[in-house]
Amino acid sequence: MSEIFVGIDLGGTNIKVGCFNSALELICKTSAATEADMGPAVVVDRIGETTEKLLADNSLSIEAVEAVGIGAPGPSNIAEGIILAAPNLPQFRNVPLRKMLSERLGKPAVFENDANAACWGEYVVGAGKGADDMVFFTLGTGIGGGIISNGELVHGFSDNAAELGHIIICTDGRLCGCGQKGCVEAYASANATAARATETVQAGAESSLKKVLEENGKITCRNVFEHSAAGDAPAKEITEGTASALGLLCVDILHVTGPQRIVFAGGMIAAGDLLLNRIRHYFKHYIWPLNPEPLEICFATRGEDAGIIGAAALAQHAKEQGKLC
Amino acid sequence: MSEIFVGIDLGGTNIKVGCFNSALELICKTSAATEADMGPAVVVDRIGETTEKLLADNSLSIEAVEAVGIGAPGPSNIAEGIILAAPNLPQFRNVPLRKMLSERLGKPAVFENDANAACWGEYVVGAGKGADDMVFFTLGTGIGGGIISNGELVHGFSDNAAELGHIIICTDGRLCGCGQKGCVEAYASANATAARATETVQAGAESSLKKVLEENGKITCRNVFEHSAAGDAPAKEITEGTASALGLLCVDILHVTGPQRIVFAGGMIAAGDLLLNRIRHYFKHYIWPLNPEPLEICFATRGEDAGIIGAAALAQHAKEQGKLC
Repeated sequence: MSEIFVGIDLGGTNIKVGCFNSALELICKTSAATEADMGPAVVVDRIGETTEKLLADNSLSIEAVEAVGIGAPGPSNIAEGIILAAPNLPQFRNVPLRKMLSERLGKPAVFENDANAACWGEYVVGAGKGADDMVFFTLGTGIGGGIISNGELVHGFSDNAAELGHIIICTDGRLCGCGQKGCVEAYASANATAARATETVQAGAESSLKKVLEENGKITCRNVFEHSAAGDAPAKEITEGTASALGLLCVDILHVTGPQRIVFAGGMIAAGDLLLNRIRHYFKHYIWPLNPEPLEICFATRGEDAGIIGAAALAQHAKEQGKLC
Repeated sequence: MSEIFVGIDLGGTNIKVGCFNSALELICKTSAATEADMGPAVVVDRIGETTEKLLADNSLSIEAVEAVGIGAPGPSNIAEGIILAAPNLPQFRNVPLRKMLSERLGKPAVFENDANAACWGEYVVGAGKGADDMVFFTLGTGIGGGIISNGELVHGFSDNAAELGHIIICTDGRLCGCGQKGCVEAYASANATAARATETVQAGAESSLKKVLEENGKITCRNVFEHSAAGDAPAKEITEGTASALGLLCVDILHVTGPQRIVFAGGMIAAGDLLLNRIRHYFKHYIWPLNPEPLEICFATRGEDAGIIGAAALAQHAKEQGKLC
């Protein structure tokens, strides 16, 4: 029986668990409700039970498991595997998750920030494959990220690197949920895209989104992209604003860590080429007119599995480096 | 005789050479005109002669030299030690500088981008000491930089990382020399600070800088800081604009690589606390109002020696890692 690496993605709502072989191919996966309000001890036990059941249901032996990786929301102490605080897991304060998980399953465990784990998943077997310098953006309610430099994740001092949604693209611009003004997240996240569309309609724009707002009481980012694709001019303008902010973000990040490839992930990439081509357009618009930059801008390919893949892959990586504990 | 590491800083005008012991203490240093227009072969020979003379003048034996490090302007292929092109060294195109230097001196040599070498110098024995995650900005004619992540320089794909002066802080803002609009360099470099002051005076502001412009035909960044210190209101406003752009830059870079410390270097830091305190002020103004960030913002301490120190230290670092060639 070949060795198995277990990858876990801990979210505020769901726990996802996957088993992978040493080629990081998915053997089986499952998910369960987190039940975060039951507290850390119960959640860790739920992770343990879910993992054991997944193994048993697929006739896999716990003995074959080499190590377990878990991606979790932060802020956290990554090296120690401690969740310091997590908005989506309110009862998790200074929780030594790695140690608890390792003891519960009797296996070595590694811990990573959830966005970094997904970034690593795309790096090892997704859209980032082969790009030892890559940057990963998650476009969802907010904008998160991960950075790989010279084949390793960038954690920074205090493990607070890659808060990429909070790069300021407009001094004294739109108020962000973080309290800063002008963050790229305040323009180009799904929430911000929807908010800008709502403001435009409420300001009296002649848009097919007006009916959406009247009927549903709100406009979503998906609505904006759909109406943009159907030719609605205000929706197109909002979409352009989102793509423009993201293209500018690509210029900024290129000038910092110098990636070979930028990978966008998250719910918003369902918009496909409608969004991707415009991000590429605005990158070309904002970047210096010197030698053409070899930067590749693309969408993620592993979807919601990136987190469990990355967590398992990080467990394998730690084993290869002799850093499992 | 203890081992010696030679550090070289190759500029368009001058070659600087220093000899360091294994504790990276300066034993002796010198400089010579580059005579860049004589071409790469002559320049390499001048570096060789200057180094040999420095050693001889200080009764040091070439046999005691363990390795040589050189910092040079780019763009370059750092791993291969090749200058691809350099605005200040027009005849240097695809020049295998590391190999040429190593052959000329008969010693192993390492090559680094000049800003990165200075960054490394401040990291090992200057203002960045002990900060394994640091960011370094040079404030001069332009704004350059270097990034250290987890104790190593970040090169990026194509060795084009840390072009930090070209982070865009204002969409469609001031035109930068690079062709982009709104780069931080277009607001906060010495040239940009002087240009903004000149524009203000020419637009009719009542400023003591008006007389400077009339008498000297130009306003320098130093003039701006001096008149700001003396209480001139328009000069103060220009200084605030420079500090504001740099404070914003600190916020942006904190959200990318998560440094413990940001070190500013270059001619502009002669302004001292007048500038530093205002950069810190604007960092606090722009950063999110969540937990206080532990980021330290300070000025470099090794002045113009940072480049030769860093080059020598990189030679030593390569030796320790078994990477000398």
